[in-house]
Amino acid sequence: MTYTDDSFMLHTDLYQINMAQAYWQDGIHQRKAIFELYFRKLPFDNGYAIFAGLKKVIEFMENFGFSASDIQYLREQGGYPKEFLQYLQDMKFTGTIVGMKEGELVFANEPILRIEAPLAQAQLIETPLLNIVNYQTLIATKASRIKQVTGEEIVMEFGTRRAHEFDAAIWGTRAAYIGGFSATSNVRAGKLFGIPVSGTHAHAMIQAYRDEYTAFKKYAAAHKDCVFLVDTYDTLRSGVPNAIRVAKELSETINFIGIRLDSGDLAYLSKMARKMLDDAGFTQVKIMASNDLDEYTIMHLKSQGAQINAWGIGTKLITAYDQAALGGVYKLVSIENEDGKMVDTMKISANPEKVTTPGCKRVYRIINNENGHAEGDYIALDGENIQEVQRLKMFHPIHTYISKFVTNFTAIELHERIIENGKIVYQEPTLQETQAYVKENLQLLWCEYKRTLNPEEYPVDLSQACWDNKMASIQAIKENVLSR
Amino acid sequence: MTYTDDSFMLHTDLYQINMAQAYWQDGIHQRKAIFELYFRKLPFDNGYAIFAGLKKVIEFMENFGFSASDIQYLREQGGYPKEFLQYLQDMKFTGTIVGMKEGELVFANEPILRIEAPLAQAQLIETPLLNIVNYQTLIATKASRIKQVTGEEIVMEFGTRRAHEFDAAIWGTRAAYIGGFSATSNVRAGKLFGIPVSGTHAHAMIQAYRDEYTAFKKYAAAHKDCVFLVDTYDTLRSGVPNAIRVAKELSETINFIGIRLDSGDLAYLSKMARKMLDDAGFTQVKIMASNDLDEYTIMHLKSQGAQINAWGIGTKLITAYDQAALGGVYKLVSIENEDGKMVDTMKISANPEKVTTPGCKRVYRIINNENGHAEGDYIALDGENIQEVQRLKMFHPIHTYISKFVTNFTAIELHERIIENGKIVYQEPTLQETQAYVKENLQLLWCEYKRTLNPEEYPVDLSQACWDNKMASIQAIKENVLSR
Repeated sequence: MTYTDDSFMLHTDLYQINMAQAYWQDGIHQRKAIFELYFRKLPFDNGYAIFAGLKKVIEFMENFGFSASDIQYLREQGGYPKEFLQYLQDMKFTGTIVGMKEGELVFANEPILRIEAPLAQAQLIETPLLNIVNYQTLIATKASRIKQVTGEEIVMEFGTRRAHEFDAAIWGTRAAYIGGFSATSNVRAGKLFGIPVSGTHAHAMIQAYRDEYTAFKKYAAAHKDCVFLVDTYDTLRSGVPNAIRVAKELSETINFIGIRLDSGDLAYLSKMARKMLDDAGFTQVKIMASNDLDEYTIMHLKSQGAQINAWGIGTKLITAYDQAALGGVYKLVSIENEDGKMVDTMKISANPEKVTTPGCKRVYRIINNENGHAEGDYIALDGENIQEVQRLKMFHPIHTYISKFVTNFTAIELHERIIENGKIVYQEPTLQETQAYVKENLQLLWCEYKRTLNPEEYPVDLSQACWDNKMASIQAIKENVLSR
Repeated sequence: MTYTDDSFMLHTDLYQINMAQAYWQDGIHQRKAIFELYFRKLPFDNGYAIFAGLKKVIEFMENFGFSASDIQYLREQGGYPKEFLQYLQDMKFTGTIVGMKEGELVFANEPILRIEAPLAQAQLIETPLLNIVNYQTLIATKASRIKQVTGEEIVMEFGTRRAHEFDAAIWGTRAAYIGGFSATSNVRAGKLFGIPVSGTHAHAMIQAYRDEYTAFKKYAAAHKDCVFLVDTYDTLRSGVPNAIRVAKELSETINFIGIRLDSGDLAYLSKMARKMLDDAGFTQVKIMASNDLDEYTIMHLKSQGAQINAWGIGTKLITAYDQAALGGVYKLVSIENEDGKMVDTMKISANPEKVTTPGCKRVYRIINNENGHAEGDYIALDGENIQEVQRLKMFHPIHTYISKFVTNFTAIELHERIIENGKIVYQEPTLQETQAYVKENLQLLWCEYKRTLNPEEYPVDLSQACWDNKMASIQAIKENVLSR
């Protein structure tokens, strides 16, 4: 039996469907549940993360609903009652999602998205939402780390061939653009997202013409803007001299923009190539480098005085090579009981970092009005009114002795309304606006949070009420569940 | 301007299109080119890799062709002549692709796929083919490593939430199945590929019912086969006792298949849980574990006597966490010259591992008829007749003093015909057949090549003619290109 790939509703873990069935059977599938999506630890030991993925989340939610072939597949798996399958077939998303906008600075243990929906619906979307947000946030963050090292230099995403299949290539490069990259090599990503595309030629073109002189000339005959790849045979003996020769011969017709180095000792070669270009009068011509680069190699190249003006980043970015997963989770924090009342809930664990924080929460960024920098984020319960607080006590949620009072501040609520009662209400900014938002937003952070090695820990604190609620829940579980 | 995502033809690097334009402008776009797709280094320091991705490659090639919106996008980018865009719009794939079947054991520097096609066509498909093969081969290989440690125990793929976007989740779990996994949690992968799906319930269900006793009972009311997750509050004080209690109460109606541990000290907890289950008479009930597992943690757990019968593997498999990319490349090895004659070509490099091997080649697996094991792989030029050789000299292509003669052997050619002159001629086996092929195929290898740490290097040798051709090409480049 083959089925068409006409829906993403089954792009979820089987246990979500099996739980939905148990809830349905018990008649609690329509009870209102509140889930939060967050991660427990910043990736790459970075001082911040950049949220990406909302566009795809919205696309997914727009198409929420089981297809006929989805239902047919489940039916043929056996074990699901006919009425349950009918319930799935009729299911529409009726819940509410609030969350951060794309490009928002986000930190460990603060809800990025909050889903308030009938229990079974909220459960089914856990897996796809995590699949989207974990990857895209990881890559936007990695890209931002690279930008911390490259400053205003041009950085381009070249990783499609090493990406984890097609979706990662295009959504990853979009996330990289959000994080501050200038362009992508992936033309489909350019087409779909409006990202500038970049690229000239590969080694194969040199090989096809046998020698660089001919190949560069042929390329220049078809393209006015030329970046010549110079490492096919020998960078300094053959590649750079041929690039210079062709550029001189065709100086009237082409823009000799740059050369690209893709192998060998990039520090040494770039310095020698720079000298050769300068000596030939091409002082404005840029040197571009690629070859398994990331923020570490770039920093080292710079410390060696490498003469590189633009960076092509592939594998290490698009796969987040040094930490290939963000461990985002999706946890139930509150659920309607049999009397229609919301009851906060939590999970405790032998692994302390896996303990959750119960209750429906809001996230505020506390900006110091005197210097314009962020004092930290503040997570409060839904009912609290932070805006009227004059003197805010902020304390570390684990090491509670670490505390401070903030007075002259602005509390910015970070959650936007994305979907209300099943209807998408969010107005997406353009991708360019999102990229600009990241850049502007990063200025809120002190430099100490932004360095790529050993950044200071940015405070993400719980309000007293939120903290008390968590402690009371732990106590209740210890009394009710564990003392039996 | 927004474009619909109606084609994968632009899922390629911009330089492929820019090179195609230069070839077209120069009138060499129709010259026959031969490219080989291969990787230079085995992933994870493993002794072998398992090829996966052919199904998706075939799907991609079936849909080869620019859509109207692709052309419109390129037109609006500017710079492409109208006639060139017309040429792209009319382009059909007319080439031939041969390659290994999915599930084939594959080693460094041997061509997995060989593409013989008009130069511009062959260039355009480089990026998507690498994007597919690099990821899927990486995951099939990682899965096989995990299977080397788990033997006949059940291993399931649970990583969708940490996969790099949607495609990686489903194609990755398919690759894991090829590598020997038994099931997936991703229902869409089950629907599309016929992989068995697996899963019961999450912590959220316990939280929704507040206590494990109630939650387990409710789950059991809807599902006959029960695997209870026991670590929501306290595994040994609450989870396991409640699972046992419910199983005893419902012994007439449910199959108590197992419990699942998802946090804490899995070695200790599994041993204690085993004892509790055994003491309660549930000696057949299985213990399943998950929580960032891979072949290393599993081996350690086993060495500590952990009582775990089935393994749920997520992040570390689906992202290939310890090495998140396979560096497969696609290199021109031969091209038609102006006289219509094929001329071999190569790239040399300051990085010796980046030097390519010129010429159209075939790959043979040399099986020793006496013991049924593989002596190594043997790469010969297209015209050589290996089948008639009585005494085959095999020598290391770099360290040539390492050599041996093989006499009583069978040479199995590893390339199948996939596409002939644009027409798909390959008959795909079922996924189950592919999985069985891997299992059977691994028996060709001596154990020394299969261990997960420090495996012996499996010989991948060049024929004398192939080696001579490479040396002659290097010499020619040194004389013609570098001596100028």
